[in-house]
Amino acid sequence: MSDVNEREIKKLPTLRGKTVVNLFFEDSTRTRISFELAAKRLSADVINFAAKGSSVSKGESLKDTAQTLEAMGADAIVLRHGSSGSAHRLAHSGWVESAVINAGDGSHEHPTQALLDAMTIREALLENPVGSDLSGKRVLIVGDISHSRVARSNLILLKELGASVATCGPATLVPRSLEPAGGIFYSLDRAIDEFDPDVVLMLRIQAERMEASFFPTEREYSRVWGLNIDRMKRLRNDAIVLHPGPMNRGLEIDAASADSTRSRILNQVSNGVSIRMAVLFQLLSGEKEETR
Amino acid sequence: MSDVNEREIKKLPTLRGKTVVNLFFEDSTRTRISFELAAKRLSADVINFAAKGSSVSKGESLKDTAQTLEAMGADAIVLRHGSSGSAHRLAHSGWVESAVINAGDGSHEHPTQALLDAMTIREALLENPVGSDLSGKRVLIVGDISHSRVARSNLILLKELGASVATCGPATLVPRSLEPAGGIFYSLDRAIDEFDPDVVLMLRIQAERMEASFFPTEREYSRVWGLNIDRMKRLRNDAIVLHPGPMNRGLEIDAASADSTRSRILNQVSNGVSIRMAVLFQLLSGEKEETR
Amino acid sequence: MSDVNEREIKKLPTLRGKTVVNLFFEDSTRTRISFELAAKRLSADVINFAAKGSSVSKGESLKDTAQTLEAMGADAIVLRHGSSGSAHRLAHSGWVESAVINAGDGSHEHPTQALLDAMTIREALLENPVGSDLSGKRVLIVGDISHSRVARSNLILLKELGASVATCGPATLVPRSLEPAGGIFYSLDRAIDEFDPDVVLMLRIQAERMEASFFPTEREYSRVWGLNIDRMKRLRNDAIVLHPGPMNRGLEIDAASADSTRSRILNQVSNGVSIRMAVLFQLLSGEKEETR
Repeated sequence: MSDVNEREIKKLPTLRGKTVVNLFFEDSTRTRISFELAAKRLSADVINFAAKGSSVSKGESLKDTAQTLEAMGADAIVLRHGSSGSAHRLAHSGWVESAVINAGDGSHEHPTQALLDAMTIREALLENPVGSDLSGKRVLIVGDISHSRVARSNLILLKELGASVATCGPATLVPRSLEPAGGIFYSLDRAIDEFDPDVVLMLRIQAERMEASFFPTEREYSRVWGLNIDRMKRLRNDAIVLHPGPMNRGLEIDAASADSTRSRILNQVSNGVSIRMAVLFQLLSGEKEETR
Repeated sequence: MSDVNEREIKKLPTLRGKTVVNLFFEDSTRTRISFELAAKRLSADVINFAAKGSSVSKGESLKDTAQTLEAMGADAIVLRHGSSGSAHRLAHSGWVESAVINAGDGSHEHPTQALLDAMTIREALLENPVGSDLSGKRVLIVGDISHSRVARSNLILLKELGASVATCGPATLVPRSLEPAGGIFYSLDRAIDEFDPDVVLMLRIQAERMEASFFPTEREYSRVWGLNIDRMKRLRNDAIVLHPGPMNRGLEIDAASADSTRSRILNQVSNGVSIRMAVLFQLLSGEKEETR
Repeated sequence: MSDVNEREIKKLPTLRGKTVVNLFFEDSTRTRISFELAAKRLSADVINFAAKGSSVSKGESLKDTAQTLEAMGADAIVLRHGSSGSAHRLAHSGWVESAVINAGDGSHEHPTQALLDAMTIREALLENPVGSDLSGKRVLIVGDISHSRVARSNLILLKELGASVATCGPATLVPRSLEPAGGIFYSLDRAIDEFDPDVVLMLRIQAERMEASFFPTEREYSRVWGLNIDRMKRLRNDAIVLHPGPMNRGLEIDAASADSTRSRILNQVSNGVSIRMAVLFQLLSGEKEETR
């Protein structure tokens, strides 16, 4: 899929006549566009359903909404929802036979984000990225781990791929319950010195966390847990920087780090479209049976 | 069209190069998506124009908006509007030559909804559904008849097809002026006993009706006019249940009735896409002249 | 492109597999639809990105948003933005290599509108419209010149094409700094008498201008600067009327003038789609190099 996206004509006929519905109960323009482009590049028809202000807000249940979409011919439902577990529920309830893709459920998971992160890490760190695992690679996830579905999905996938993962952030935002094998750090400087990461994955800080007093001030956050050019210099030479976006430049990451040659943030975005094309292809193409 | 929607590749090339505009002055995600899918399955280009927050709310008239869309090349305008008669006005004013499709005008009509209801009834009750009329079939419409464009369009079409129609609901919400041939009932139990319907079409209750005191409480409404499993048992064995959606489960219909094998609610949704494909095809395909 | 839009099948395969993003930081349904149709008629994939309520409003910069869209594979970014100079900035900053098209930046420019106006004037006034200049033609722009990107872009393009341009409006809304060769008039009657225009381009009056006391009342505005049927009679016989839309009928233009046979307002709308097709084609087709 990555190759297709490099072509002059970025289009495959594979999913022609299939219907993909982006069912978004939360705003997420970036993720919605990534899935929309992925589906269009495979020639599927795409319907965007922003659930705000729709019949859903008139009290219709997720079950009825999903069954309605399936009755209209949806082959896949890409679900973004504020409730943790909603995508799993929809996929395993027997309510619909459509493919269900989790595009972020509450503070639970965001699996395609973890897949695109792993793809980006492989491309950057491995000579032979396809099919290889990440044994021995050290990934440091920094920021609001507690509320982050990106962190949760990465913890699962990166462990599966053999990487060693550590978390870092204010004690109020880093849960001890997740216990990554690489450990928990409460200072980014110590994490860099002691964990010596190959990958630093910076998470976005939501303004509402500060309002809820999870940390004292933006300046304090930036000083202790933000990635900046001084900290970049202390990373290994080949270490890379990731961020799921959108970035708060000057808060969790400074401009020099974001725009550094070691930043793979835009590669993440590109890979996101390829990963979502692959997910849709696996679930909807005629080769579905064979790939199981 | 129904067959096309059952295919692996749900797509016809018929309206390639044609432009269909969904001009929606009211939110109706469900109807908009149904028309959008119908147009895309026929390979038309679709433009969604949500009139809220657009130049229309800046005071542009329906005439100017429609003429602008036609000047941009719209072959069909699918109009949802809060004012009764707006679609008829647009179609017969000479303002535009584009096809005009009424997707709901105020509390007046919603013709494609009636067409999909009739199609669903035929499929369920007749051995040979295509081309047959509904002579002798009894359809009971229950709920807020006064404000319902679904009820109005069904009263016209079902009568045309030879069915006997009765209405049922609180006296505050069932107008005597419509006078269906099958009569008016003010209790659902009496309607079931005396009218013995083949089809029960439950209408959605809008929350604002209760606030405006058309009926005392939700519980009261549900008790006297709601469809529930006890009432289902008293229906004829082959009677079916319809609802235009979205449902208020627990208000006008309980979950057991909605999910019953006699519910044809999801068939209505599927048939909606097929009906709208047929309408667009009739109006826009090269065979337009021949079909008149 | 104009010919394509007259065909039964209004579609060219030219930009198949290309991605056009409408990045709109301000609402403008009309302009967005015009670009969306232009891209679809050339078979491009179109993504609509309304920046309100998106990550952009969460504080992401224009740079990050544009780079993200490019990383997703955007070949062209159609930018509507409230800040004057934003499109120029994006095109010349080196942030992205995608084509950047200005769809209106603050009160600065709206180049495709000027192109479509020039095309409409040529079609109406010249026997051989393609490739000819507008030497000797007199164009009068009437209304809120100060805040109008339409006026600014037309002043540049029409001068380039050899036309003589004059401006007219209340002294509070007509800047002396623009100094068109044809002069500045503070009364529409005097402008008609003394400038004898071939084209009268009426600008839309924004309600917020009146609230800000740029002119006394709507009635006063309409009386002194509005186009009406009496003033139409005093124009040259072959003079035409333009308006970028949406019109305030009864304010800057009365219904009889707007619907007159000398009004070319709907031609402007049609030509807008053709012009935008041409712009996208020039920027994105394989023939890009040759046309430079």
